[in-house]
This record gives sequence, structure tokens and C-alpha cells, in this order.
Amino acid sequence: MGKRYSETVEVPFYHCDVNGHLTLPAMLGMVIKTSEAQSDALDRGKEFVTNFGLTWVITNYEMTIKRLPEVGEQITITTEAISYNKYFCYRNFWIHDASGAECVLIESTFVLMDLVNRKMSSVLEEIIAPYESEKIKKIHRGAKILPVAAGTFLPYRVRYYDIDSNQHVNNAMYFNWLIDVLGFDFLTKHQPKEIHIKFEKEVEYGHEIESWYEVDQETLTSHHEIRIGDQIYCSANILWS
Amino acid sequence: MGKRYSETVEVPFYHCDVNGHLTLPAMLGMVIKTSEAQSDALDRGKEFVTNFGLTWVITNYEMTIKRLPEVGEQITITTEAISYNKYFCYRNFWIHDASGAECVLIESTFVLMDLVNRKMSSVLEEIIAPYESEKIKKIHRGAKILPVAAGTFLPYRVRYYDIDSNQHVNNAMYFNWLIDVLGFDFLTKHQPKEIHIKFEKEVEYGHEIESWYEVDQETLTSHHEIRIGDQIYCSANILWS
Repeated sequence: MGKRYSETVEVPFYHCDVNGHLTLPAMLGMVIKTSEAQSDALDRGKEFVTNFGLTWVITNYEMTIKRLPEVGEQITITTEAISYNKYFCYRNFWIHDASGAECVLIESTFVLMDLVNRKMSSVLEEIIAPYESEKIKKIHRGAKILPVAAGTFLPYRVRYYDIDSNQHVNNAMYFNWLIDVLGFDFLTKHQPKEIHIKFEKEVEYGHEIESWYEVDQETLTSHHEIRIGDQIYCSANILWS
Repeated sequence: MGKRYSETVEVPFYHCDVNGHLTLPAMLGMVIKTSEAQSDALDRGKEFVTNFGLTWVITNYEMTIKRLPEVGEQITITTEAISYNKYFCYRNFWIHDASGAECVLIESTFVLMDLVNRKMSSVLEEIIAPYESEKIKKIHRGAKILPVAAGTFLPYRVRYYDIDSNQHVNNAMYFNWLIDVLGFDFLTKHQPKEIHIKFEKEVEYGHEIESWYEVDQETLTSHHEIRIGDQIYCSANILWS
């Protein structure tokens, strides 16, 4: 068991969609802020990691959503660096409501990337030790993400405000492009229950991406790919209810 | 003098741009949340106003920006409903940093709009009284907003997440379109010092807007118009440093 860290915050109206539910990009921003606060509290903040010429990159999220938090709610975000192996660090996030009920579980995979050659680095003990997470041999394989077999797309230009103060496109932003293509009717009728997403390549400012999607109406699952030309930057499956 | 209401909040990284400055849409979201909190505290929240068949609409902002708040800062947002006349309510917002220095002043004009016929309503005493703002005769005329005489534009589709839990496109979102057109080089070299913006017509989901702009390099002023066809939805001038 790693150290846990919690923050209680209010869900502001400007983070909520037309249904009054916390949006996915906002939810991811809030949970990542909690893990950054834990890192700062353990003296393993951005500056410490940068001193090794490294930066944290998220490669996967597996989300289990019982219900999305709603406008005005007080929620508690808890994070724990669960375990790590040579290359991968596994961190969980939980969102609980004021009654203590679990609303959302997010299982994530982080890697350390070399700032110069943009290649994955092995996990350094100096960086990881204070989190007290378990060292394991096993590599977690998330659920297989089904491709967009046919499908269609909408194009999106990466905007100035899509680059955050960490100097690159926060991958929470990808959800703006993934979700928007599904349209008003679908999004006001359905709620996401499970999300599997894999970030394969970094989208950059100035790119115009294609947000490909298809919806399997029988299983109520949407398949998504962020592409530029033939290159897949991100793939995701979302199970809806 | 009207009643004042303050909230102290931290500026999260996901609300900041590549320079580490609070973005304009995020700043406006935060200040409006403070005025909503004041209204709730005075029992003049959304439900109370809706019971009269009305809703608040913002028609103008005049912003004076000494400096934009930065990532990780604790800021105090203060709001006061200053005065009102038959149709217009004038509300100020101030953002102060932890040392008490004023970073931003936002002077705003609110009107009450009939939810059914979408026409402006006169200000009701039942709604406005608890704010204790001054009743005046005068109508404030903001600085004249210069049009886009020549200029060029980029198109933007209104996205699902641009509609907030108040059921329409939050006019803070317009800043996503206004600012983005200026591009990375300009936006990383210049800071906004004064902003005059007028919201003339509501942009709706499904619209594709044109964000027109031109930059007067001598005065370092940008002129902006959000247009659909010949119709102007919003016009703004921004003075940069």
C-alpha cells in the first residue's frame, strides 16, 4: 500500500456540462492536480523530477464511473501510487461524494520520459521511494481497446489554450475531441460507465487532429481514435448506459 | 455601496496557459462563480430569479489587468453589485493576490432577460434589494469598441462542452475563440492590459462562428468580432503590453 493523499473540492458550474455533470477534461484536471499536490508534499514535485532530465507522462486510464459528480457537490479526491515495475507506475484516483460513496475510480499508468530524447526512462528509486508504493514484476495489461473499424470523424485544431502551464497539450484535453463528436442527442441521453484510453503519441500545438469514432448500438460502446493522417495518437473505448 | 462578497481560491495548473497565467475563460468562470455564491448567500440564487421567469445575462465587461494570476497562487475574488438603473445592473469584481495587491478589476453589466420571449426585463426590486446597491439614473456607456475594419478570421464550431450547466454557451467561452486566433508567437510575447467586450447576441450549440480579428501594431490593440454571416454576436478590443 502506497501513501494516500486527499483533497476535498467543490464542483464549480463552469466545469459541468449541460446535464450538470462534471466534464471529463475537468475531472482529469482535478485528479491530476491532487497527484501533483501529493508530489509537492513529498518533495517530489516537478522541479525534483526535472532535475533528473525527466518528466511524468500518462499512458493509460481505466475509469469506472458509478456516477459523475454534479454541480455544487463537495467531492473528495484521493490518490495513491499503488505499485511500480521497471518502467511503469500505477496510480489510482478515487472520487467520493459527501456521504462517502464512491463515484469514480480511475486507474492510471505513468511513465518517466527523458526530456531531451523523449524516450521512456526506467523508474528511479530517488523519485519513487517517498510514495511507498509496492515494487512488482508484473506488467498490467489493460482491457484491449477495440479499433474504429469503419466510423467517421470531425477535425479539430489544437488551440492555444489547449497547451497548459506544463508546456504541452494536457491529455485531459483529448476528451474534448473524443466526446464532442458524439453530439448533443447522444450525450444528453447517455452517461459514460467505463472508459479505457491509451495515449500513444503527443499531440502538439498547431496540429489539426481527426477525431474518429463509431458507436456499437448493441453494446452501447463507442470506439474512438485521435488520428493525424495514418498515425494513431490516442485510442479509447467508452461503455455508456 | 453594495454588499461585498469574497472567496479565496488557488489557481490550478489546468486553468493556466503556456506562460503559467490564468486563462481569460477560466478567470471569468471563477469570478462569476463568486457572484453566484453571493446570490445564493442572499437567497437570490438561480431558482429565485427563475421563479420570475427571468435569468441574468451579461452584456459587457471592462477589464483592467495589472497582471494575470499565476499557477499555484492563492487569489481572493471580491464582488460587489455597485449600482443599477431601470434596466442595467453594474457589478465589479476584483482579484487580489496574497499580499493584498490588486491584479485585476472587472466592471460588468448584467441585465435580466425574460426566459420565454428572450427580451430584456426591467430590474425587479424583489431581486435586487438584498445586494444593497445604489439606485441611479445614469446609464454607463463603456469605452467605444472599434470594429474590425479589414482583418481575417478563423472558424470555430461550438462544442458540446461549450454549453455549461446553465444550459447555454457561457460567454466566458467566447474568449477561447477571441484569443486563439492571435497565435502562439503573439500570445507568448504579449499580455492583455485592458479588455472591452460587448456581447450582442447569444451563440448557440451547433453554430459555426467566425472569429474575426486585426491587430493595430502601433497601439498594440487587437480588434475582435465574433460573427455568423453578417451578424455580429460579440465585439471586443484588447490593449496588450
